[in-house]
Amino acid sequence: MAELRKDPIVGRWVIIDTDHPSGPQDFEKEELAFRGGDCPFCYGNEALTPPEIEVIRDPNTPANKPGWQVRAIANKFPALQIEGDIERRGLGLYDMSNGTGAHEIIIQTPYHHKELSDLEDYEVENVIRMYCRRMSDLYKDTRFKYILLFKNHGPSAGASLEHPHTQLIALPMIPKNVQEELDGAFAYFAYRERCVFCDINRQELQEKERIIFDGKYFLVFCPYVSRLPFEIWIVPKKHQDAFCQMNNEQIQELARTLKSTLQRINEVLNHPAYNFIVHTSPINVEHKEGYHWHIEIIPKLTRVAGFEWGTGFYIVPTPPELAAKHLKQ
Amino acid sequence: MAELRKDPIVGRWVIIDTDHPSGPQDFEKEELAFRGGDCPFCYGNEALTPPEIEVIRDPNTPANKPGWQVRAIANKFPALQIEGDIERRGLGLYDMSNGTGAHEIIIQTPYHHKELSDLEDYEVENVIRMYCRRMSDLYKDTRFKYILLFKNHGPSAGASLEHPHTQLIALPMIPKNVQEELDGAFAYFAYRERCVFCDINRQELQEKERIIFDGKYFLVFCPYVSRLPFEIWIVPKKHQDAFCQMNNEQIQELARTLKSTLQRINEVLNHPAYNFIVHTSPINVEHKEGYHWHIEIIPKLTRVAGFEWGTGFYIVPTPPELAAKHLKQ
Repeated sequence: MAELRKDPIVGRWVIIDTDHPSGPQDFEKEELAFRGGDCPFCYGNEALTPPEIEVIRDPNTPANKPGWQVRAIANKFPALQIEGDIERRGLGLYDMSNGTGAHEIIIQTPYHHKELSDLEDYEVENVIRMYCRRMSDLYKDTRFKYILLFKNHGPSAGASLEHPHTQLIALPMIPKNVQEELDGAFAYFAYRERCVFCDINRQELQEKERIIFDGKYFLVFCPYVSRLPFEIWIVPKKHQDAFCQMNNEQIQELARTLKSTLQRINEVLNHPAYNFIVHTSPINVEHKEGYHWHIEIIPKLTRVAGFEWGTGFYIVPTPPELAAKHLKQ
Repeated sequence: MAELRKDPIVGRWVIIDTDHPSGPQDFEKEELAFRGGDCPFCYGNEALTPPEIEVIRDPNTPANKPGWQVRAIANKFPALQIEGDIERRGLGLYDMSNGTGAHEIIIQTPYHHKELSDLEDYEVENVIRMYCRRMSDLYKDTRFKYILLFKNHGPSAGASLEHPHTQLIALPMIPKNVQEELDGAFAYFAYRERCVFCDINRQELQEKERIIFDGKYFLVFCPYVSRLPFEIWIVPKKHQDAFCQMNNEQIQELARTLKSTLQRINEVLNHPAYNFIVHTSPINVEHKEGYHWHIEIIPKLTRVAGFEWGTGFYIVPTPPELAAKHLKQ
């Protein structure tokens, strides 16, 4: 019999297939190729991209030339453009706004084939430091209400360029999914006077069966209400509402943790496409004691179909307990 | 410059790429194959499926043998099972329920390669009549709060069997997406004392540029706040809150309209995978004057990526005005 589970934060139900659970071997791999051509993110091709906004590079190397380790640039084909004020207006019963925002790319490494999971620990730390720096910088722009940091890895997860990179989109409004998560977390806090994520950490540590890694600063587990098979969350163990508040020790552990989690995914699921998304508190948010930043990693193993589109619910072929068991081994 | 648009019902923003809009030729076709093997939905293979629950068949032909035109059966691998009472319980801070529900398949035709768009008008009418009959029947079961009717066409839209079929899932709760649509529509009604869908119809008829077909009973258009390129809505022109309330004349026009819309999609987008979902009022819902049933068709041309997962917003490469222009030709 299938099991229905309800998300304690946003109230979403999922249907977990406990009768005929799918293991790592049961997912068909989508074989999609990247388009060819010269890679604009590789060493020596710096002129093919917009100039670097921020960079970690060897001393005495000139900007926009080789010698860098991590490079933040504006997206050449941005979803939103940085110029201009935000102008909202109505159009009959519809509402619209011009597309002001920011869309940046963080090129994680000069090496075309070195994913986060292949880098040295200190290199991953540098990538995370760059995430924090760009995020903090963009939050200074008062036009923006939320900065989304996310990664599309592999064409079937929506990546259009192969060279390892992460994206940052600054939005003039708080996104629907973030607002729902905030509302749910605040409602829980109002009722219980405790952070829902802290409570989830506590329960996961007690039940143990969904935990993949239990570190000093971070807990890695498959969430009880996974939407997708082999979904993984990385959650700070101590309450912290925003990603940029991490101290150096936390950044170091997060680098090791993120790297080893991606390595496990690659081993167990044979290098799948995946997305990861940093869920963090928007700036100027009140009730910081009710929200708790974390990273959600979703390997792309299944396809969103009519049921998911129609309901917002998910049918999950792999119980998170089974996923965690595979990922722990 | 991109344009941001806000959905008047659920408040979702989308980013429309008005600068570099994608036409029908700009989408890469995913080439995914169905698994081989004997088709359980074909003539003569009736014994491979659970027995028919309801059927339209030639007079004097025995049940579960050839001679049928449309056949409704229980899904052999149901997401939810029909037996048992719904039992909810808590598990620490989590909530769960057993997986009671119903999961039926409507086999649209005995012909393996005849999609809705290839059938005769009267055959499509019969399929729609069967949708209504199964929906009405399942609503008699008081354990269910919502019946979702949807179609996955093509492997990349989540179909696992090629033979043309539609699915019905009866759920013991109102799905998140449906509740949001209801809440949004009711809030609009409370404020304006008019149905938001009726107002959308009026505005679309006035502006004309997103309309694909304007019939006696149905309006077909690309919604102003499309989430996906070439998204299409079929909306009754007169206020009607539930799919099953259609009279015979409406069913006849819907059959012709659905068929010709799918034919247009096939011609313009080269037979893409797609989903369609019937959005209808749940039984026993109050404020029936505020909700309005309709069908949403979403061709599968792009992939949901990190931005969409993180925000619930969508980046739409084809403005609906351009999509409608292509689909009208």
